[in-house]
Amino acid sequence: MIHTRERLSVNEMCIRGWSSTQLIQRCADHGIGWVALWRDRVRSAGVDTVRAALGATGVGISSLCRGGMFTAETLAQEQAAIDDNLRAIDEAAELGASVLVLVCGPVRRRDLRRGRRQVRTGIEAIIDRAGSCGVRLAVEPLHPMMVADRSVIVTLREALDVVDDLASEHVGIALDTYHVFWDPDLARLVDEAAGRIFCYQVSDWVVPISDGLSSRGLPGEGHIDLCGIGALVEAVGYSGPVEVEVLSDRLWSMPAEAAFDAVVGSYDSLGCC
Amino acid sequence: MIHTRERLSVNEMCIRGWSSTQLIQRCADHGIGWVALWRDRVRSAGVDTVRAALGATGVGISSLCRGGMFTAETLAQEQAAIDDNLRAIDEAAELGASVLVLVCGPVRRRDLRRGRRQVRTGIEAIIDRAGSCGVRLAVEPLHPMMVADRSVIVTLREALDVVDDLASEHVGIALDTYHVFWDPDLARLVDEAAGRIFCYQVSDWVVPISDGLSSRGLPGEGHIDLCGIGALVEAVGYSGPVEVEVLSDRLWSMPAEAAFDAVVGSYDSLGCC
Repeated sequence: MIHTRERLSVNEMCIRGWSSTQLIQRCADHGIGWVALWRDRVRSAGVDTVRAALGATGVGISSLCRGGMFTAETLAQEQAAIDDNLRAIDEAAELGASVLVLVCGPVRRRDLRRGRRQVRTGIEAIIDRAGSCGVRLAVEPLHPMMVADRSVIVTLREALDVVDDLASEHVGIALDTYHVFWDPDLARLVDEAAGRIFCYQVSDWVVPISDGLSSRGLPGEGHIDLCGIGALVEAVGYSGPVEVEVLSDRLWSMPAEAAFDAVVGSYDSLGCC
Repeated sequence: MIHTRERLSVNEMCIRGWSSTQLIQRCADHGIGWVALWRDRVRSAGVDTVRAALGATGVGISSLCRGGMFTAETLAQEQAAIDDNLRAIDEAAELGASVLVLVCGPVRRRDLRRGRRQVRTGIEAIIDRAGSCGVRLAVEPLHPMMVADRSVIVTLREALDVVDDLASEHVGIALDTYHVFWDPDLARLVDEAAGRIFCYQVSDWVVPISDGLSSRGLPGEGHIDLCGIGALVEAVGYSGPVEVEVLSDRLWSMPAEAAFDAVVGSYDSLGCC
């Protein structure tokens, strides 16, 4: 995979201390094609302001994070999750984001099967709105270490099964190297995901894990064969943005400018071709 | 699964501050049928002393931890790992342990495929010795979050593939709830593992993860459906020891007696039937 600046998307969760609009401007200054934004930060900056910044700079929004969290203990909670996802779709449409990432929700009361059913039901309930808004839903399999706090969907196999079951052109996959690199079936599954990869994210696995969420490494720092996975993704025709999404206590402790430089520098240095 | 004291095995890694022989005596005092021991601690106590304590009390040794660590960067390292596994088999035989647990070794130089090949080659090289010593080799799939520091074998599917490929009655599975509970295919895979589960370990998944190794919870404290998994394992005919193996900074900070009581108490309270 060729790592051009035009293809790079900086996920704003890498960086603390900048507003969405500050990040957009900085990306434009550095010839970076895309940003990935988070709902809460967009709301803080103001949807109209952020949309204007995107329009003025020509920087694209590769994905909005995040919808999902469909797992629930009561029917009322299930419905509340669906309602929130409908709002997320509207927000994505207002911003001009064509992809909403779905983090599907953690296991509750130790019942993985019920949680996985709720994910299907939840996504099914929001497909029509997504279709009418022109927003694609990207089901993200998360690393199995996140099953109890973030997602019952923990393998690419399982995410593809959800996508297959729902059989909608509006539902596909968010593929994050951090979550899937360990999978012995990865090559075969990426092949099967051809045409359905709506979002591609990279970060690296570094040890020791100090926290389930924020222990990630910059691309190139860790144990993931990012060039190998990039080649798989490219081989099935993916030519979209490459989101660098590094949730990291280390990056979060740095001044925004330094964190931004570290992210962009790590991407520039990947050197795969 | 019925949780009797006769069936309980206390893995000595739960407890700091006792020698192997102290743990064996304490288990005997409490009507506990088994212990699971670690090579370094057995060596510290003296193999003959530990064997004598097992014989005198009638406490069994459910498994010896651990062999494995087959992944290597050079042929010399590959051979050194094989040699160490041959010694581990001898030690298991000297102790009267019928099962040696294999933790297969981490990814090196980002090359999962090579690591997985080395695991097959390594186990193949030690099967004959295992057979002649009457020691069964239990391939343990570890949680995917341990792929970079402990094991390239991270799914039960993959471990069963290794076992199938090697096609030896001396090679089977170590099934640990902590490592496999998240797997969407678990029920089917446990079914496929019938007759090949050489070791069954329990602990619980608690959040947040503070460390990849030592964040485990006592059975019943966390998000794993231990009764459900126990029922699966029992349904395929497993009737052996139930090892409680809780690697936990919290337990390690407790006096040995208190940690032991916590382990036994959590097992007693599981209450599945």
